[in-house]
Amino acid sequence: MQYPEAIGRLIESFTKLPGIGPKTAVRLAFHVLDMEEDDVLTFAKSLVSAKRDIKYCTVCGHITDIDPCAICKDSHRDETVVCVVQDSRDVIAMEKMREYRGKYHVLHGAISPMEGIGPEDINVSSLLTRLQENESIQEVILATNPNIEGEATSMYLSRLLKPTGIRVTRLAHGLPVGGDLEYADEVTLSRAMEGRREL
Amino acid sequence: MQYPEAIGRLIESFTKLPGIGPKTAVRLAFHVLDMEEDDVLTFAKSLVSAKRDIKYCTVCGHITDIDPCAICKDSHRDETVVCVVQDSRDVIAMEKMREYRGKYHVLHGAISPMEGIGPEDINVSSLLTRLQENESIQEVILATNPNIEGEATSMYLSRLLKPTGIRVTRLAHGLPVGGDLEYADEVTLSRAMEGRREL
Repeated sequence: MQYPEAIGRLIESFTKLPGIGPKTAVRLAFHVLDMEEDDVLTFAKSLVSAKRDIKYCTVCGHITDIDPCAICKDSHRDETVVCVVQDSRDVIAMEKMREYRGKYHVLHGAISPMEGIGPEDINVSSLLTRLQENESIQEVILATNPNIEGEATSMYLSRLLKPTGIRVTRLAHGLPVGGDLEYADEVTLSRAMEGRREL
Repeated sequence: MQYPEAIGRLIESFTKLPGIGPKTAVRLAFHVLDMEEDDVLTFAKSLVSAKRDIKYCTVCGHITDIDPCAICKDSHRDETVVCVVQDSRDVIAMEKMREYRGKYHVLHGAISPMEGIGPEDINVSSLLTRLQENESIQEVILATNPNIEGEATSMYLSRLLKPTGIRVTRLAHGLPVGGDLEYADEVTLSRAMEGRREL
């Protein structure tokens, strides 16, 4: 005898989520049995509506329930700067900073020869079209992740965009604020030296 | 600007699950966006059907989609032995062993004076009724957890059941198989000495 079918199926669904193994899935499924029915219904509805209502903005590629997205539509934002990020979560992270007032472009990935992901597999062509069609854009900030794939992508984009005459910048590398110099790795430290500034 | 509403609600639902913090909830919600729509629908349906279809067996208290549950109904199982456990998950653990062929009784908790949980808050009275009504039961195996609450519960039940003349047993304490004597705690070791057997 195993689990009753209804809970067995729920455990299976939980197991498919990233980072959730069989034991955690069982714990979560039993938690659902103890939840209020209303909360379970809300959970189920939000699953379906997230999948159905959330689309990618046709302008910037950010997740949105309206098209173009709220950021692209917002006329109070600076139209002259576009910040290129790998993922929609990076947009949220930038927005939490509450300092950047420009627009975004979400690549949905990074160039990775190891995994066979080339420029044509990420949202690059729409960035080029956007830059060609919108002459007010004066700066592209490359905010891809500070790892091999992110660096490769930003290198590729900077070479691609340089000839257009648009200013291309990259987020600074250096010591994270609140960190400890002692624990910084050599590459970060060397980049921090390279990028040192006069006070 | 924060998350679009549909995904914000999903993140909130995930955060309510045990052991899932805000960052994991965001990761899971974004994973849902990348899932096939069919898989998301299956997930949502299994949530609702687990909550709606799973009931507690009126005889033993185990989770089930039919009443009485498959174990209580099974006439091939030994009706003379009842194994008392704290939780439905313990029934599954016992069943995985594939050696026990008796029936079960699920308490849905353990006596815990610290948390104000007394015998009347767990599934004890139905166990007594069951023992009175079913004269074929000859042995009650107390398989509550080997911790303070579980021990207190098993002590309480053994005192309660002794006068009825039914044999009351407790699962053995000792070294876990595959374990290392060096790392066993003193209490376990002392119980293992106490329960030593002639070879």
